[in-house]
Amino acid sequence: MIMENEKIELINAIALKRGFFMPSAEIYKGKADIAGLYFYGHLGKSMKLKFESLWRNFFLKLHDNFYEIEGTCILPKQVFEASGHLENFNDPLVQCLNCGFRFRADVFIEDELGINVYGFTNEEMTKIIRQNSLKCPKCNSIKLGDVNFFNMMFPISLGALSKEPNAYLTPETAQQSYLAFKREYEALRKKLPLGLAVIGKVFRNEISPRQIFFRLREFTQAELQVFIDKDMLDEDLLGIWEKIKNKEVKVKLANEEKEKEYKISELPYPKLYLSFLYKIQEFYFEKLKIPKEKFRFRELSEEERAFYNKFHFDVEIYLDSLKGFKEVAGLHYRSDYDLGRHEKHSKESMNVLWKNKKVLPHVIELSFGVDRNIFALLDVFFKKEKERNLFCFPPSVSPIQIAVFPLVNKDGLNNKAREIYEKLKNYFDCFYDEADSIGRRYRRQDEIGTPFCITVDYQTLEDDTVTIRDRDSMKQERIKIENLLDYFCKKFY
Amino acid sequence: MIMENEKIELINAIALKRGFFMPSAEIYKGKADIAGLYFYGHLGKSMKLKFESLWRNFFLKLHDNFYEIEGTCILPKQVFEASGHLENFNDPLVQCLNCGFRFRADVFIEDELGINVYGFTNEEMTKIIRQNSLKCPKCNSIKLGDVNFFNMMFPISLGALSKEPNAYLTPETAQQSYLAFKREYEALRKKLPLGLAVIGKVFRNEISPRQIFFRLREFTQAELQVFIDKDMLDEDLLGIWEKIKNKEVKVKLANEEKEKEYKISELPYPKLYLSFLYKIQEFYFEKLKIPKEKFRFRELSEEERAFYNKFHFDVEIYLDSLKGFKEVAGLHYRSDYDLGRHEKHSKESMNVLWKNKKVLPHVIELSFGVDRNIFALLDVFFKKEKERNLFCFPPSVSPIQIAVFPLVNKDGLNNKAREIYEKLKNYFDCFYDEADSIGRRYRRQDEIGTPFCITVDYQTLEDDTVTIRDRDSMKQERIKIENLLDYFCKKFY
Repeated sequence: MIMENEKIELINAIALKRGFFMPSAEIYKGKADIAGLYFYGHLGKSMKLKFESLWRNFFLKLHDNFYEIEGTCILPKQVFEASGHLENFNDPLVQCLNCGFRFRADVFIEDELGINVYGFTNEEMTKIIRQNSLKCPKCNSIKLGDVNFFNMMFPISLGALSKEPNAYLTPETAQQSYLAFKREYEALRKKLPLGLAVIGKVFRNEISPRQIFFRLREFTQAELQVFIDKDMLDEDLLGIWEKIKNKEVKVKLANEEKEKEYKISELPYPKLYLSFLYKIQEFYFEKLKIPKEKFRFRELSEEERAFYNKFHFDVEIYLDSLKGFKEVAGLHYRSDYDLGRHEKHSKESMNVLWKNKKVLPHVIELSFGVDRNIFALLDVFFKKEKERNLFCFPPSVSPIQIAVFPLVNKDGLNNKAREIYEKLKNYFDCFYDEADSIGRRYRRQDEIGTPFCITVDYQTLEDDTVTIRDRDSMKQERIKIENLLDYFCKKFY
Repeated sequence: MIMENEKIELINAIALKRGFFMPSAEIYKGKADIAGLYFYGHLGKSMKLKFESLWRNFFLKLHDNFYEIEGTCILPKQVFEASGHLENFNDPLVQCLNCGFRFRADVFIEDELGINVYGFTNEEMTKIIRQNSLKCPKCNSIKLGDVNFFNMMFPISLGALSKEPNAYLTPETAQQSYLAFKREYEALRKKLPLGLAVIGKVFRNEISPRQIFFRLREFTQAELQVFIDKDMLDEDLLGIWEKIKNKEVKVKLANEEKEKEYKISELPYPKLYLSFLYKIQEFYFEKLKIPKEKFRFRELSEEERAFYNKFHFDVEIYLDSLKGFKEVAGLHYRSDYDLGRHEKHSKESMNVLWKNKKVLPHVIELSFGVDRNIFALLDVFFKKEKERNLFCFPPSVSPIQIAVFPLVNKDGLNNKAREIYEKLKNYFDCFYDEADSIGRRYRRQDEIGTPFCITVDYQTLEDDTVTIRDRDSMKQERIKIENLLDYFCKKFY
């Protein structure tokens, strides 16, 4: 068994060494604040592109009227007055009156006392700090100020006129879909449901970013906002109800201690919401191949969820390196809160005429943290064996899908191997390697999760066959070169 | 013939109505500053994804050691001290001393006097404003201040401690590749050339954003930074020299009035630089199908180009709506400026050991404005005919590739058409439409550039054939349903 701390350190070391991810502007480390900012190296980017493509192909194909759009990261202040972010998107902060250091009050209390203060008021947190005589983590002074709110959005001044911020970097992609709703509804022939997805960057000024990819200041969301007439909640809009109603989903209900399997139709939620719930689970099981035991939905109680979220389930994956089930996605029924607020603030009607009645559309939101999902894949599929480190990624997300080696770098084996590589790279992500022993080359591919290695040996020159070595079983089989394309198409699709 | 102003207005109207692009946060127009910020609607996003995918498949396949990475938009201040952006990335600004209005001095002078002041100093521009007694465009006062520099980067304060900006939104993706160079060079087995591409958002606080997609405050770049040993400039690294050396490229040289065709090997530039030049032209001709007469390279003179760019060619496309050849991409030989500056400022060595000598890599940069290219596609392929508006996009960038219609919405024709649609949408971007007459449905598809429309009619029920209508010729042919997939695969790939 591999220990949790060892696991996160190993993954981090491999990530840096092989090109999965790295701290942003790492060469300025120590001189600059780069906490919570990460780059993707070439392997991580390859995985991210694959994840995004899987996500698109799965969720946008759930209904003919679901489409992807792209908004701007910079949005005017008015948007966040309407959305409530200016007022409510805050972290509780405490400042040391001696040295001036500012830090997150809730994280501080949890670290110092092990108390979870989720939902506590600033006054309550101030009281806990005082009663326990907590000291500044930097200068050890006992003179700590009151807990205050700190808005987590980054302010932006557009144009040369404005001294005060007149815009913000968006902290969620959702607003872009709400802002585009009217235009897209018209362009897409005035039909509900209408789904508008965005895969894009979002920004949050976290005070204490930690946990590598789990609390970033700049990250990518993949969100689908589904605009519906409220009555559609009970309809079978995805056309799958009969097929799924007796299937099971794994849920930790708000009033239960542990997750368990529930028959879909037993859960007290409307058909449409449950259809999305099922499809999300299918995405994790069928597309990402997450093992069942590491997956669950968590139903949030009324106190835990935002007031505009009538229903709220988090998707959680068990991560060894963070020692627990962690949120990677969510399914939220947001009612008519979003369009209603924008209607009020912009004075533009958000109503549509649907089936001869005026409707202010309600929203079901499917929200995924892309980077969190990539990190989850690294954690879930990492294995340390006696002889090797490996990622058992499914081929659909492996950064490299096929490696091609000549057994030795002479006698024409290298030319033959190159030929095969040149052909396969038109169809798959391939890597050619002729350095070091075959054993070391296998290990290097294991360490980045390449599912198959092709080796060209002396027999190849005789009968036009190569060996294919399987990452997980380490078994080899011989295949005719002319059958390779077919072989991998079957393995991958 | 279609007039230029009419063209841009028509494209803009279609873009809004059909979902190519729209102003950001449009519902707050008039209340908020949204100039230079645009959303992509579902059609524009589909084109953008296709463009990015074409770009990746073409440029990253030029060499085995070219890879894509992803950086953060927020980068610490130190990066831009090193890059020179903090000092040099400025627009000349003038402020009205009466009403306080600030605006771009160069644009103002060009608007008022028709004088191009490119390269003029602030003092020279101040003098021109004074001598011509130019007045504030807002309050008409003659009291205008001196021309001053205004930095175009958006400052960011990371964390709760910092009152002064300690970071900026990146104005180019290139910096991300330079920052990742050391890690990626190690991860990719210490080989030159190393290509690191980024497709990502960049941000520039333009004072007077105009021309729709041509001067945006937030836009997407696709850039490839190729790190080389300086000696490689004269090598045939892409392995294409023999094939291309007698081919022609269309160039407007700095000292010539007009563009003309030059044989590659006649141009006084090194092999590697010319190889990229040729490949960029091939991308525009072969992949984007830009007509030859609308394409040219423009060689920048020493005065025009940045001092660190030893060679600098812009890629220009003739756009009716902007009345001239406009820059959409560029090829720059940046010498060792970038890594050298980062080495100096970070105190981290950027030297690598290459073939037993210490080398500070030089950079060749291929830089593309993604949004500008999308806009160029809209402009170049738009046609107004007597009966219809249409975009003659090549299928590789058409937002919708195939539309499927039942002739009438009854007698089982609609079910048959749906069946075909459901099958084809697994392979292509398809759209199903059963509303209005066939003629109107054809027009709607013409207007968004769909190359093929399939119609299911009564004959279909008899012999399992459908008509395929070609957008450009408007001719129809009958095809067996079972041959459709094959037919389109041949058309598209």
